[in-house]
Order: sequence, then C-alpha cells, then structure tokens
Amino acid sequence: MDRVLTNLSFVSMQPETGYQCIHDGVIGITGNKISFVGKSNDADLHGHPDVIDCQGALVTPGFIDCHTHLIFAGNRANEFEQRLQGVPYETIAKQGGGILATVTATREASEDTLYELAIERLEGLKRDGVTTVEIKSGYGLSLEDELKMLRVAKRINELDDIKVSTTLLAAHALPPEYKDKPDDYIDLICQQIIPAAAEQQLADAVDVFCENIGFTNAQCQRVFIAAIEHGLSLKGHTEQLSNQGGSALAASMGATSVDHIEHLDQQGVNSLKHHGTVATLLPGAFYFLRETQMPPIAHLRAAEVPMAIATDFNPGTSPMASLRLMMNMASTLFGLTPEESLRGVTCNAAQALGLHETRGQIRVGMEADLAIWQLEHPAELTYRIGVPDLLARVVDGAFFYAD
Amino acid sequence: MDRVLTNLSFVSMQPETGYQCIHDGVIGITGNKISFVGKSNDADLHGHPDVIDCQGALVTPGFIDCHTHLIFAGNRANEFEQRLQGVPYETIAKQGGGILATVTATREASEDTLYELAIERLEGLKRDGVTTVEIKSGYGLSLEDELKMLRVAKRINELDDIKVSTTLLAAHALPPEYKDKPDDYIDLICQQIIPAAAEQQLADAVDVFCENIGFTNAQCQRVFIAAIEHGLSLKGHTEQLSNQGGSALAASMGATSVDHIEHLDQQGVNSLKHHGTVATLLPGAFYFLRETQMPPIAHLRAAEVPMAIATDFNPGTSPMASLRLMMNMASTLFGLTPEESLRGVTCNAAQALGLHETRGQIRVGMEADLAIWQLEHPAELTYRIGVPDLLARVVDGAFFYAD
Ligand SMILES: [Zn+2]
Ligand SMILES: [Zn+2]
Repeated sequence: MDRVLTNLSFVSMQPETGYQCIHDGVIGITGNKISFVGKSNDADLHGHPDVIDCQGALVTPGFIDCHTHLIFAGNRANEFEQRLQGVPYETIAKQGGGILATVTATREASEDTLYELAIERLEGLKRDGVTTVEIKSGYGLSLEDELKMLRVAKRINELDDIKVSTTLLAAHALPPEYKDKPDDYIDLICQQIIPAAAEQQLADAVDVFCENIGFTNAQCQRVFIAAIEHGLSLKGHTEQLSNQGGSALAASMGATSVDHIEHLDQQGVNSLKHHGTVATLLPGAFYFLRETQMPPIAHLRAAEVPMAIATDFNPGTSPMASLRLMMNMASTLFGLTPEESLRGVTCNAAQALGLHETRGQIRVGMEADLAIWQLEHPAELTYRIGVPDLLARVVDGAFFYAD
Repeated sequence: MDRVLTNLSFVSMQPETGYQCIHDGVIGITGNKISFVGKSNDADLHGHPDVIDCQGALVTPGFIDCHTHLIFAGNRANEFEQRLQGVPYETIAKQGGGILATVTATREASEDTLYELAIERLEGLKRDGVTTVEIKSGYGLSLEDELKMLRVAKRINELDDIKVSTTLLAAHALPPEYKDKPDDYIDLICQQIIPAAAEQQLADAVDVFCENIGFTNAQCQRVFIAAIEHGLSLKGHTEQLSNQGGSALAASMGATSVDHIEHLDQQGVNSLKHHGTVATLLPGAFYFLRETQMPPIAHLRAAEVPMAIATDFNPGTSPMASLRLMMNMASTLFGLTPEESLRGVTCNAAQALGLHETRGQIRVGMEADLAIWQLEHPAELTYRIGVPDLLARVVDGAFFYAD
C-alpha cells in the first residue's frame, strides 16, 4: 500500500451488505487503486510511511453525477423570472426563449468561455463529493458546435481532481436550420456527427430526447443504430412528459440507462429489468417543473432495477448543482430510502455510465475515488442539506481537501 | 468615507424601486454604516486611500435568515431513515423520537458542544450570504436549559462576521415533566423563564407554537402578555398545520412576524395588514413535510403584507442550511417572483426582526452589511442553486471573503 487511510468509518456500497457502516476501518491505496479494505486489527501498519488519520470521519465512494448538461452559455434566469411574473410561455418563446436561447448563446461562445463557465458550476458538484461527472453536449446541434462542446468536456477531464464521462446528445432538440425537417437532422447526426465524435474519441455514449416535443422512437432508433455501429454506449431521455415507449426501445438496444422515466409503465419496468438497464431519476427537474407524475418507484424496487440519481444540471429545468440536494429530493419527493439515494449516486450511478467494474464502490481493485465526510451515519448525506460536511475528496488516490 | 466599493452593480432593496439593478455603482462606508450610495460619476474618489474594485460584481444587502432553530444537539437522520423505511410514526415516537429526542440531547449537551455544532451549521448559511441570523431556543424547555441555549446564541453574536437576533421559544413543546399540565408550564414560562431571559438580556423576542399539538391561543396570549411586560418583541409559529387564529392573535398584540401560515385565512391576512405584521414563509418545512396546503400568497400580495423567507433550520422538519434554496423553493413551490424572494431575505426579513430601520437595505445610514456575488442579475440568486456564487460578505463594513 502506498497510502493508508485509518481511523474512519466507511460504507463500501458493494451489493447486499454495502450500506452497513463499518467502524474502525482501514482503506489502503496502491497507485490509483484501492488495495485494502478492512478493519484496523486486520492491517499491520507498523512503520508505514504514509498513514492518514481520518479522525473518525465517514468515507463513501466518490459521488458520481451520471446526468448533467454542465456546458452551456447564456442565462435563463430572465425566463424564470418572467414565468413567475405571469408572462405567458408563448411570449417567452417568441422572444427566443427556451432551449434555443441556450443553443444560440452556446454556439456563439468560445471553448474557453464554455470551459470557464462549466468549471464554476463544477465547483458546486465538487462540494458535494462528486469525483466523476457525466457531461452531455446538446446545445450545439450542429457538427461543429456539438464537437466543440465535447472538446470542452474532454478538457475538463484533464483536471486531476475530476473524471468526466462524455455523452453526445445531438438529438436533444431540432435546430432552427432543420425546422420541419427532423429526419434530415437525424441524417446529419447519424452520418456526420456520430462518426466524427467517435473518430475523434470525444464521446463515450450517445443520448436522445425521445418525446412528443423531442424525437420519435423511429428517429431515436436510427441514432442508436449509428451509435452502436461506432462502438458508443447508449442512453435515453425517456418517458419524462409522456409514455412513448422510449425506455423499452433504449433498453432493448442495450442502453446503460434511461433517464427521467416519470411516465414509465410496468412493461417498461420489465424491459429495464430484462436488459439490465439502470433507471436514472432526476428529481431536480421534477421539482423545478412542478411535475406531479411520479416515477414508478415501487415497481422499479419490486423488479430490482437499479436506480441512479443525478442533478440533470441545466439552465432550463434543473439549475441546481447539488447532488446532495438531489438525494434529499429523491427521498423526500419520491420516497427513496437513504440507502437507495446513496446507491443512486455511487454504485448505481457508476452502472448508469457502464463504469461499475471500476468505480462507485469501496472495493479492492477499484479506482481510489472517495469522499470523506464529517458525518457519523450515511443517512445524514441524504437528510441534511447545506452544512459543509465534506472534508476531502480522493481521486485516483490523490487527496483534494475541501475549503 | 473610510472605504469605498466601486465597479459594481447593486440592488438597494429599498421600497418601490429597490429591485432595479443599478450599474456602475459606488457604495461608501464610514465606520460600520453605509455613508454613500450612488453612481460612479457622482462620487469623487480621487486619491481615496481605501477603494475596493468589485470587478463588476452584484451587491445586495447582506441576507437575513429571520427564523432558525440553529442550536441543538443530537441527530434525527435515524428517524428520517426509519420513516422512509416504512416504520410507523408511533413506533418512532415510542422509541423517544420526535422533538423530545432533540430536547433530551440538547439538555445533556454542554454550552461548548452546542456552540460548536451551531457554528458548523452557520457556515452553510454564511455561504449563502447571510450576515444576520435569528436563533431560537426551544429545545431546553426548562428555565436552566432555555437560558443555556440563549447564552450560546449570544456567544455566536460575539463573532465579528455574523449578527444574531435571539428569540425565547420556551413555548415550543410541552416538556415531559409537565405532561398533562400545560398551564403549569405556561406559569413557569411567564413567571420564571421570560423574566430571567429579560433580566439577563438574553432574548430580543418571545415566540410560541400555537397549534393543536402545541399551545392554545389562551396559553399563547399569556406568554405574549408576559413578554410585553418585560419589553420583549413577539413572534409566532402560527397556522402551520391548522387554522387556530394564532396569527391574528399575535398580530393584534404587536408581533413583528407570524411564521409558517399555510392555513391563514382572509381574516388573518387582514389582521396582518392592519397591524403591520410580517408573514414569514418557511418553504423548507413545507417541502420536507410534503405539505399540500399553500400559504395564501395571492391574498398576502393583494393586501401588501410584507413576506419574509427563512430556513427554519431544525432537525425535525427543515434540516436545510441554505437560504438560497429557500428562495428557490419560495418561487418554485409558492410562486413568489424573484423580487419577492429577494425582499424576503433582505428588507422584509429585517422587518420580521424589527430591524428594518438599520438593516436589510443598501441605504445611507444603515449598517454596512452586504453580500457580493459573482452574478449579473438578482433573479439568479433565486434561480440557481449550488454554484458557489458568493465572493464576500461585508459585516459592519468589514470584509469576509468566501472560500
Ligand atoms: Zn437531461
Ligand atoms: Zn420554527
């Protein structure tokens, strides 16, 4: 062991027993991997040169925010304000509001500007113990601008203290240039954007917005087929506002996760179960949009479909850079237990990104990504909001202390 | 002017025009007071020795959290978890859960312990720009333990970077020693606790929990009479779970604020209007308890009753130390405009504490308590959560930079 953490409690978040809080624990790190997990009386640390006394702190796997739109320019506080002042949605849309306002601003912004803006937002996530973040494109909606967004995400991945999963979401909205020609835009995505993103190794996954106001199942299927041909993983924004069967489609084609899923029916749940797809809950958007249709938690639980939780950080429907708040909302609004909420941002979030073999648990052989908390019990992670509980994050074995 | 802040935008939060964002602004400070408010071309700063360039930042009055239970010991994450695991409330109560769990732990804790715990929680509020915080007793429920809590609050007030308003809330719950003898406990409050708190100058105000599960109107009235006799201000936890008429009672006796008020009726609104009482909204408890009865926002607005917003930070129903989140919830859940939300934590929160002559606005002669934000428009304060936007707080003219 290069480095040993002692005098700590931990929850490993391994399957079955992983929420059991182990006291008097020891975690050993070799290189960037966890090489020992146990109790202090199992570890001979005599004379070890690099022992870190955690003073009784609680250690969890580093948190994983598996669904964000962290990169964009512009500001939609004005729309938020107008809505609350009673301005009709149509008026806001006519002013160029909505997602296309963000597309316009993002297209105009330089990579440096987008990088700086995203880094600020990321600081909020880091305060909540996040060590891995998924970042989607989807505000470029052209070959050039989608690749620009993904390059910014890859640049963030070069930081020592955060790991980034990148997702191409060209099928997020119809760009104005393709008004009334959605299939032509799908052609562009399949024939140019996906191949380019794959060739330049800018994307780990491809995502779609399958919805009345997004793309049809047939269009999403074409995108998924192109993604598979280029060796990319699949994800879907599905069953958010209505039941389109997009989740079952995505699952049947091998998607690692389907996200939102407020309108998922039992058949959809069965499909996730059958294909091993993660159900990602986005309670921030549910809250922000004042939705009332709840995701089918009881059915997901009964079918043992793994549930992940993410911020969906974005300027239109979830401007909230706090994964702890999302855990609290998942429990308060959706009724998840604190264990389910914590699994939602660790082991299950890793699975939503196809990274469950290497991240999301405290387990020998996994990457040494940890969060260290001034808390006694893991339920407090979900229960209490706003108090600066984080002491440090560990990324690939390196320590990053909180302010 | 001892010190001048330049190159900033500000919202003064003065009545009428105070939400208008003034660009290219200058704020002068002399001693602990604001001595100049204007535009750069109105101010001759040539050769001034202490000019702080705010680099275009947005300046607001320092935020005021006018309703908190920041001081307590113990932890109720376990109850939160049990509830979500489906354990019936009765079982939790039989285990000694609920408010009496906090009372037991608080009684057992030393002043030093209570101080340390409160200071940690306060760090969360400071991150959101809070410069004044109200802190209630109410987990002691005996002469000795209520005074102990107030002494801790007064000790926090000695810090340079925060101002504390203290409120005696002995009438929070019936202590076990007085089971079935609520009037005897009211005697203790009126004859011993209020006189002692007043004599030792530990309390600015006296608060009550007027509710079926709290105290009756007649009991609350007795407490208010004793408070008035001892020169203390009045506040009330009223109309949270049912309509008891407690708000009208408190207002008629001169309360500065009534708080929660989900069940306030039109007559109650009229009473607040008539007596100049502030309506304090506590959306965190509304959210955490999954309540559905909304406070009568439209009626309050129509009657021009000032609305304040506070965290109600407490271990049972609002374990959330973020005033920005409360602003967002006030807008998202209750439909307040961002202007109303910002007034709710500045000028109106000051009024809820009877401090509106000296705090809560950027105005010549007021105390120099400010919050400086890396934001462009004040609506962003309500809209965006979790990104570390705060650059600095100013308390009595002294700067405290954010991490
Ligand atoms: Zn999304
Ligand atoms: Zn309260």
